[in-house]
Amino acid sequence: MGNLTIRMLAEKLGLSVGSVSKALRDSPEISTSTRKKVQELARELHYVPNPYASSLRRKRSGTIAVVLPEVADHFFSSAIDGIESIAQANGYHTLIYLTHESPLREEAILQDFQGGRVDGILISLSGATTDPRAIRELVARNIPVIFFDRVFEELPATRIVTDDLHSSYQATRCLLEKGCRKIAYLSISSTSSIMVKRMEGYKKALAEYGFSGEDVNCIVCEGDAGRNYTLIKDSLASDRRPDGIIASVEKLAITTYQVCHDLQLSIPGDIKIIAFSNQASAALLDPSLTTITQPAFEMGRTAAAALFRVLQTEEAILPDETTVLPSKLIERESTG
Amino acid sequence: MGNLTIRMLAEKLGLSVGSVSKALRDSPEISTSTRKKVQELARELHYVPNPYASSLRRKRSGTIAVVLPEVADHFFSSAIDGIESIAQANGYHTLIYLTHESPLREEAILQDFQGGRVDGILISLSGATTDPRAIRELVARNIPVIFFDRVFEELPATRIVTDDLHSSYQATRCLLEKGCRKIAYLSISSTSSIMVKRMEGYKKALAEYGFSGEDVNCIVCEGDAGRNYTLIKDSLASDRRPDGIIASVEKLAITTYQVCHDLQLSIPGDIKIIAFSNQASAALLDPSLTTITQPAFEMGRTAAAALFRVLQTEEAILPDETTVLPSKLIERESTG
Repeated sequence: MGNLTIRMLAEKLGLSVGSVSKALRDSPEISTSTRKKVQELARELHYVPNPYASSLRRKRSGTIAVVLPEVADHFFSSAIDGIESIAQANGYHTLIYLTHESPLREEAILQDFQGGRVDGILISLSGATTDPRAIRELVARNIPVIFFDRVFEELPATRIVTDDLHSSYQATRCLLEKGCRKIAYLSISSTSSIMVKRMEGYKKALAEYGFSGEDVNCIVCEGDAGRNYTLIKDSLASDRRPDGIIASVEKLAITTYQVCHDLQLSIPGDIKIIAFSNQASAALLDPSLTTITQPAFEMGRTAAAALFRVLQTEEAILPDETTVLPSKLIERESTG
Repeated sequence: MGNLTIRMLAEKLGLSVGSVSKALRDSPEISTSTRKKVQELARELHYVPNPYASSLRRKRSGTIAVVLPEVADHFFSSAIDGIESIAQANGYHTLIYLTHESPLREEAILQDFQGGRVDGILISLSGATTDPRAIRELVARNIPVIFFDRVFEELPATRIVTDDLHSSYQATRCLLEKGCRKIAYLSISSTSSIMVKRMEGYKKALAEYGFSGEDVNCIVCEGDAGRNYTLIKDSLASDRRPDGIIASVEKLAITTYQVCHDLQLSIPGDIKIIAFSNQASAALLDPSLTTITQPAFEMGRTAAAALFRVLQTEEAILPDETTVLPSKLIERESTG
């Protein structure tokens, strides 16, 4: 069965495409009798509007994009749930794009949006992204972009973040108070906004306890699961083994648990661990994991709400503002 | 900055829209000098094709949809990774739609695809879906739909599944061999294809061990997290407390762990647990969780490859066939 187009409907009725389109939308510009005639034929022939054709007429796609590093992480899957709850209430479709932490893939995705595939974009940047060019081009084309969690600090933009510096500072202090003296910070990037902030919080707490720059131990785990395992294992098997670990993302905490298990190191006896994580099972791990739990769902909701506020106006002018939603340190057995 | 359309380009050049479109695609129907002139102006003015306009011309959207119950589950997040690896190799966009286990939401999503928003669909049905009408309508419109994991058995279709009946049979036998005599099966639906198959495998093993229909204990957890917690707690706090649990999805295993913790029941001492789960941290739970690990990534890859085989032909005729990829029982501490 071929697709019935609006043009075919118009031909059958001896009307213009514009009149049929208006009649289908029940526009008062068209007489009641014509509207009725058009709508009846459309029903009879099971006409379904082509979304691309109607999006060209309306100059709106009815779709927003969410660009994320991955979905196999509880922070991002909860944030998606928050975004979708708002998009659906606004009658919008949500497209999810994964960058897998690749700036190249991210750039290709963003460039594709230039043609108007989506009305607006919510993005959490890949760990290694440093070039804001693709974002600038979208903004120049009046396509609103809102950042959440991992943001560009350099651009004027609407950002929804959590208190990364303070959370990391708190986590480091917690480890110091429990007696840790060789704390390592596991990062996924040396440039990403949240990684830099969390690093600053870690350094600030160390400095307050009288540690010097030489005591800063940042392990950047940018590779795949296997390479990250090796990096962490090398550190935990070395003479200068850390006695405390701050994992900046959930999966690095899981890898650290695996390494400790394989090296027969006791948590929290030999090493204490805190992770940024939204995993429901953190409390059920052996030992239960102390977490910095982020307001992921709420961050998604807030970012989507900011986008729809802009989409409801004619001009897509986004305020240059940063909204900070607080995270929460939940102490469990992994910190003793 | 307004969007430059192909029509504006054509007007500037004094050419037809069709000629400009062909010149941009480097068609030999257009003279070399004209092609060069068009392409140079397009570059100079930063022309980006509107994907909806070009999809109307090509009658292809370059997009596939993945319709899923949720992403906060390691089976689905791994399946998405598998699907994306194939879509990307084919130069396609992947749109992810979440049904949150709602047949109504699923139907609305599928109906929207009738207009040609996507070239093909990969779907894992919501737990409560029983009506294949929305799928039939897509098939009637020549839009290919491929099922993975949760499928319709009644329709002729291409399905990618795992050996649910056998896995569940194996899991139940494992619990019986460890001495369990009151095994409960935690399901999310009484109608979903995989839930029914897993139930059959469970009943088959019970029957082989001489148990009757009265010993079958299926707890259907269709509600939100809070209601599921209450259902499981009521069962584990009752006089007829199960001594073995088969959790048909990952999240029900986590809830069971929480209930056991709260009721101070020992795993595996009081209750042994096996779960269908792809969670990397299953081995790190307290106690480590015995799992039936599904080939999630491979199922996603296989489903996407089947879709692209159809998209490469003119007629979207899908073979009526079921591909079964095996799961694996991994025994850990939760079964003693």
